Amino acid sequence: MSDKGNRSTLVGILVFDQVEVLDFAGPFEVFSTTRLDEARRAETDSPFDIRLIAEHKQVITTTGGMMVVPHHDFEDCPDLDILVVPGGRGARREISNIRLMEWLRQQSDGLSLLAGVCTGSMLLGQAGLLEGLRATTHWRSLDWMREYFPDVMVVEDEFVVDAGSVITSAGISAGIDMALQLVLRFHGQEVARAAARYMEYPFPENSRLRMVQDIKDAADRSQQIQEAHQQDDSAR
Amino acid sequence: MSDKGNRSTLVGILVFDQVEVLDFAGPFEVFSTTRLDEARRAETDSPFDIRLIAEHKQVITTTGGMMVVPHHDFEDCPDLDILVVPGGRGARREISNIRLMEWLRQQSDGLSLLAGVCTGSMLLGQAGLLEGLRATTHWRSLDWMREYFPDVMVVEDEFVVDAGSVITSAGISAGIDMALQLVLRFHGQEVARAAARYMEYPFPENSRLRMVQDIKDAADRSQQIQEAHQQDDSAR
Repeated sequence: MSDKGNRSTLVGILVFDQVEVLDFAGPFEVFSTTRLDEARRAETDSPFDIRLIAEHKQVITTTGGMMVVPHHDFEDCPDLDILVVPGGRGARREISNIRLMEWLRQQSDGLSLLAGVCTGSMLLGQAGLLEGLRATTHWRSLDWMREYFPDVMVVEDEFVVDAGSVITSAGISAGIDMALQLVLRFHGQEVARAAARYMEYPFPENSRLRMVQDIKDAADRSQQIQEAHQQDDSAR
Repeated sequence: MSDKGNRSTLVGILVFDQVEVLDFAGPFEVFSTTRLDEARRAETDSPFDIRLIAEHKQVITTTGGMMVVPHHDFEDCPDLDILVVPGGRGARREISNIRLMEWLRQQSDGLSLLAGVCTGSMLLGQAGLLEGLRATTHWRSLDWMREYFPDVMVVEDEFVVDAGSVITSAGISAGIDMALQLVLRFHGQEVARAAARYMEYPFPENSRLRMVQDIKDAADRSQQIQEAHQQDDSAR
């Protein structure tokens, strides 16, 4: 079940200007906090080695203005096992970046796993890497995905969509759930549960639980708005 | 209820070497993704202006090796409204940093709100800023907090502990819930719910829900281990 060899799994996470913070920082946290032996957490390292990759080796400014320094550019990026492609406002610019699309296609050949978070899935779609596959994206971009990529089976009722060698997730915080699913796949359920427990994050064994909560929130909100309107009306 | 003036709320988030990624990136995401008018999300900015603050203006290396560039050091830090103090492995070194303790005490005078995430709460305790208050920290550090700060009322069954001018949270992902509570306090429930919805994160109106999930996970894990042991025994 588990790959417990000495070589760590090399995870690349793409970053670009106006990348959404949690889209890349959520998976980064999951991979960095994982331990194969929870009892020896303090003395051991993660089985994942995580690198931020950017087109150019310059400081990246995220949504909200966080500045991060990429470890590698496209030229000196090592051979990756997993590549995570996040989204955010900048993804609407990067979808027209031909060099990025070529790089994604080249990378995809050598990977064990390709992962899209949020509108990062749109970048995978544009590179032609979702053709004929089930995939998802941020709830506000589901129509965009359907329109742009008619050959993709767009899934809207799953938080994390596992299509084998490509895994995609819903928006922003869903990247955490996606990364926990990858930890499970590489190192089994006990290791993934221990990482989630350490992060004090609910283990995403039933991803639809998260959506039910969202739907309940939306229903509550709708009811409150209606009640407020009724109060306004009766006060007139 | 809401402060909808033009001036944005200035949020400082402390960073230091070996800070836990999600401890600071989670709140950063919440504050940066908030909008007062959800319908005008793309054309408007967050009502929060977020800055990373470090003791020295050098690149910070987080747990797992992410490199971030602080916006300010202690010398040029502007007058903050909210200060978020994250934790992580580096907090065990920073708790002995006398200059940081002095800076925290100085800052606390001018703030509307002081927030501790994870073992960041231990730094607030060491600075004497939790005296006589209810507070919490990462589940693995609750005993450490009780031992070090006997005058703090350590809470272990709440995910976010609101003590008025000081708010603390459980570990790592709990910083997201804490920040959503602050958005609620500054801009009301509708704005906070919309930010959570945009992040596809469950709104933390019932923080104990998260703990119940953790406890259920622990029980499941325990049962699996016991079943595995029984199988081992019967196989002998």
